[in-house]
Amino acid sequence: MRIDILSAVPELLESPLSHSIIKRAINKGLAEIHIHNIRDYTLDKHKKIDDYAFGFSAGMVMQIEPIDRLITHLKSEREYDEVIYTSPDGEVFDQPMANSMSLLNNVIILCGHYKGIDHRIREHLITKEVSVGDFVLTGGELAACIMADAVIRLIPGAMSDVESALSDSFQDNLLAPPVYSRPAEYKGWRVPDILLSGNEAKVKEWEYEQALARTKALRPDLLNKK
Amino acid sequence: MRIDILSAVPELLESPLSHSIIKRAINKGLAEIHIHNIRDYTLDKHKKIDDYAFGFSAGMVMQIEPIDRLITHLKSEREYDEVIYTSPDGEVFDQPMANSMSLLNNVIILCGHYKGIDHRIREHLITKEVSVGDFVLTGGELAACIMADAVIRLIPGAMSDVESALSDSFQDNLLAPPVYSRPAEYKGWRVPDILLSGNEAKVKEWEYEQALARTKALRPDLLNKK
Repeated sequence: MRIDILSAVPELLESPLSHSIIKRAINKGLAEIHIHNIRDYTLDKHKKIDDYAFGFSAGMVMQIEPIDRLITHLKSEREYDEVIYTSPDGEVFDQPMANSMSLLNNVIILCGHYKGIDHRIREHLITKEVSVGDFVLTGGELAACIMADAVIRLIPGAMSDVESALSDSFQDNLLAPPVYSRPAEYKGWRVPDILLSGNEAKVKEWEYEQALARTKALRPDLLNKK
Repeated sequence: MRIDILSAVPELLESPLSHSIIKRAINKGLAEIHIHNIRDYTLDKHKKIDDYAFGFSAGMVMQIEPIDRLITHLKSEREYDEVIYTSPDGEVFDQPMANSMSLLNNVIILCGHYKGIDHRIREHLITKEVSVGDFVLTGGELAACIMADAVIRLIPGAMSDVESALSDSFQDNLLAPPVYSRPAEYKGWRVPDILLSGNEAKVKEWEYEQALARTKALRPDLLNKK
């Protein structure tokens, strides 16, 4: 899988995309991430890529021309399955979307500026708008990192332990059960006895009950999802 | 406002927290972000901070001891308003939560490992669990960055243009209207005439109608929020 991330602040993307599972997946050749600086595609001599909005709104708007030039350049080199724009009014990113994105070959993610991009980009160049949540960020860079992280870890081979992903929260619309590790007692706080019992069937049953109880208490909406 | 972020992969947090609005807010003395490596608080000679889960689950669990030592150390230095844990089963982070968090003085954010942390930490040390969405990440670091970014930009003085934050999506439960910038025509794609009219009252009316229409079409649920 290849992800091209288009940003006005590419420095911001450096550390999250060069550690942990993402780094391992890239090193194994399972994923490629290419970061592009939108400023490299402006014809403006000051490398300016935003300008005042038409009308009377406050805030700057990212202009169409450099972004169009960059996307056109990328599309001339290969076919893209999606050209995604990170926007608070997009379709909400969730685990099923991460699962389907992990099957794509080539994806562009355009990181927005917090006040927005020229709407004609969204009408003519973008194929899918994705939101990571109902909050406003300085830019779309962190949203792009989140998508890359959630998607790349699902590519077979990216994680060292496949089973571990299958038992994540959301993969079965249940929250994960509580987990505990050594020591069995710490400052008087004890691990539930059942987990120390060695009875696998009983432990599995307890974990399922806990997952169901936590989901009912904290996120009952998940139980009604298909 | 001071945010202490506790992580097992502190390198990952570097670039997102040292650019753009966050950097400016820190330079202006409006916010402090302190990143702590949980490994510095283990007594294990190999700096190990995770171990197998009790029971039969796959995946490693972050242990209670180093995290308790780190949180205890921080609490001995100042009072904290919240000790937050980033978890997919937490309360969902949104703009109203960002607004209230921006009023706090001292906050700890503990970044989880994807399989989880010893549940006793959540029972005894954490005061609030927050999720940035219904998806699974490698760790809580990106969630912590998102919270820091969404919150710090709201601190008065952090953004250069206060008006600009007030007209963000979600601040009034309406999505933002479309925005456009120069050129007025590009490849035959034109900016709506109304925005070029110079009639402020008409433009404001158009923007409100567009915001309402986009919200009804894309996120009708926002209109029923208080």
